[in-house]
Amino acid sequence: MEGDPTLRLRVFDLNCWAIRYLSKRRQERVRLIGNMLRREGFDLVLLQEVWSEQDYSDLKVKLGGCYPFSHYFRRFPILDTLLYQYSLNGYPYMLQHGDWFCGKSVGLVIIKISGIIFNVYVTHLHAEYCREKDAYLPHRLVQAWELAQFIRHTSKAADVVLLGGDLNMHPEDVGIRLLRGWTGLRDAFAEAARFEGCEDGCTLVPNNCFTVKTELLPFPLGIRIDYILYKAISSFTVKCEELKTTTGTAPGMDIPFSDHEAVMATLHIQRQGQAAGATLGTAEPTLADVVTEARTEVGVGLRAAQQQRYSTGRMAVLALLLLLLQALAALGVLAGLAAGQPFPKLSFSLLAFLAIGVLLLATGLHLFHTIEVKMLQGTEEQMRMALRALQERPSDG
Amino acid sequence: MEGDPTLRLRVFDLNCWAIRYLSKRRQERVRLIGNMLRREGFDLVLLQEVWSEQDYSDLKVKLGGCYPFSHYFRRFPILDTLLYQYSLNGYPYMLQHGDWFCGKSVGLVIIKISGIIFNVYVTHLHAEYCREKDAYLPHRLVQAWELAQFIRHTSKAADVVLLGGDLNMHPEDVGIRLLRGWTGLRDAFAEAARFEGCEDGCTLVPNNCFTVKTELLPFPLGIRIDYILYKAISSFTVKCEELKTTTGTAPGMDIPFSDHEAVMATLHIQRQGQAAGATLGTAEPTLADVVTEARTEVGVGLRAAQQQRYSTGRMAVLALLLLLLQALAALGVLAGLAAGQPFPKLSFSLLAFLAIGVLLLATGLHLFHTIEVKMLQGTEEQMRMALRALQERPSDG
Repeated sequence: MEGDPTLRLRVFDLNCWAIRYLSKRRQERVRLIGNMLRREGFDLVLLQEVWSEQDYSDLKVKLGGCYPFSHYFRRFPILDTLLYQYSLNGYPYMLQHGDWFCGKSVGLVIIKISGIIFNVYVTHLHAEYCREKDAYLPHRLVQAWELAQFIRHTSKAADVVLLGGDLNMHPEDVGIRLLRGWTGLRDAFAEAARFEGCEDGCTLVPNNCFTVKTELLPFPLGIRIDYILYKAISSFTVKCEELKTTTGTAPGMDIPFSDHEAVMATLHIQRQGQAAGATLGTAEPTLADVVTEARTEVGVGLRAAQQQRYSTGRMAVLALLLLLLQALAALGVLAGLAAGQPFPKLSFSLLAFLAIGVLLLATGLHLFHTIEVKMLQGTEEQMRMALRALQERPSDG
Repeated sequence: MEGDPTLRLRVFDLNCWAIRYLSKRRQERVRLIGNMLRREGFDLVLLQEVWSEQDYSDLKVKLGGCYPFSHYFRRFPILDTLLYQYSLNGYPYMLQHGDWFCGKSVGLVIIKISGIIFNVYVTHLHAEYCREKDAYLPHRLVQAWELAQFIRHTSKAADVVLLGGDLNMHPEDVGIRLLRGWTGLRDAFAEAARFEGCEDGCTLVPNNCFTVKTELLPFPLGIRIDYILYKAISSFTVKCEELKTTTGTAPGMDIPFSDHEAVMATLHIQRQGQAAGATLGTAEPTLADVVTEARTEVGVGLRAAQQQRYSTGRMAVLALLLLLLQALAALGVLAGLAAGQPFPKLSFSLLAFLAIGVLLLATGLHLFHTIEVKMLQGTEEQMRMALRALQERPSDG
């Protein structure tokens, strides 16, 4: 490949849905994914939700021959890596959603192919459980903003930036417009010269036997939430020659790889004679609108968080008061002041236990929402600064 | 300052110890800090532990005139900011240490002064509570490593890098050697042409009325854990003309600013005719030794975390078994199978409460230590990669 004027790069992205005990037919699917990756020999493989260490090392052993460099296997020497944890990621008490426990983050891997420095980012943002009343929108927007900022700050020495992952956002959502506008990343699906796969490039489709059909009712074709995005910095150009998705069950198989469809892009990277100039700044008034829209949503989340901080604080104070009252009553009984009938012991101690439980829980939640408020405020402040910078920049759009 | 061949920059760094309800004479000290900052007119002010929003906005209002750009006030327009949260930061159940709840992170602010791009980092690493048996050493090493990686990855477009903060490490500790070696940062105290202040540049001294004297018994002069570090990238040089620390109570005042001494550096930044070349690579065999040493310590932490993951998992299983036994016994009584004396209700329900409590706690801790294991493994893996890169590089040291 060295010396070739254009570099052809085949990228594979999939949310594998490989969570122990929870994901259906996990081991079988991980085996299928491994087989396919070995057969296809992609240049770059970006996997999400490979939660089990065992699955990871199985894949590593299986693919060691064709993907010797693994921090999740790639074919090119890895120069460096970095992991960035998002500051917000849902709520610990939403056990049924579980995102908080998974600790969402973005991974960065720096690789050099044919003398070209690639910054490759892989991520998974907070899920959307109810589109009509999406309580997680502010958190996901904070994540999209932090992702964009992380990419901007860490990619200054890169020639090409690639981002793959399950962004849990529809193409027209404010978070993805923010991410694309603020980083200058382009959407491989929108730019692809050829496309093959699910209609509209959807990656969560009713056709897939593992998806929850009721969730997709408003979207008969499915939704597109998994992406490969890219941009060239300095004197390079990137073009997407072809984009493919899997389409539910792949031919010759009885189950899909995952509940998500895989996204596969073939990219052409070419060295240009002249520097292309800044990619940002082509449509700044629009970008300012997007940042304003995102900031408004973050503000909505901020007020909700402040409200919850207040109510959990109040609940903690009430539980403390109840405990104090009980302590007083108990002391009174001990001192023989209460001449009347004493409380039944069982209900008295159950009540005390309850009060202690509520006190601990409410204090914990109060702390949590205090941090949430700080993070949302921080993001709002950063967006305000970004808007100021956008407005001060000489308009050339 | 524009057009001046050398730029003179006065930097102030202080861990303010301004935690509501916990820090002694907080409001009075914050007022003193504000007065001094207004009087001195530093170019760059880096404060840690300003926890109260009220203190922050008070300082902002007071200093608005002389420090118009505040994301924690600076005198120069801020171009951009980013916050990175460390993946590990102690244990939630070590309530008396409290670091976990504070969520340690590193903040980055990018500013431009006289056409020179400064990347300014502010941080606060996990405290050391017992030097002889420092249970937090692996976590602090993970933080030092992540800090170094974050600086390396985000400073590629900077001309000058500045890092200030309470690193909670003595100058000869492996973490600070790792940070300095891996980033090429230089210690303002060691490089200063003139020094004035506490002996050996100590920033936690017995002379300060807020420090805990027993903790400093092994160190009669005190310890140096607050730093200003710097390096020049591209075609600049930075020299430290003068370094000062406060010395307990400042003249004319009856209390110190904080339990830490402030560090104040005067830096000279000069544009060079020629690029200075890579700052890394001067003493690579030593750097490899430092990384190896750090990796060994992270490995020790990893084994401890694995052990704790195992024991908390076992405790959760035992609590679950106890609950199941109780449920069986209760069912037996209900079905009239147990002909003998029934259990006393109070102790039975207390036992059940206890088992539920232990189950929840042990499960939570098990999850926590599982994440801890993953993070320590990730850092160990990254250090292994760094060592390989150091060994593969042509030796020019």
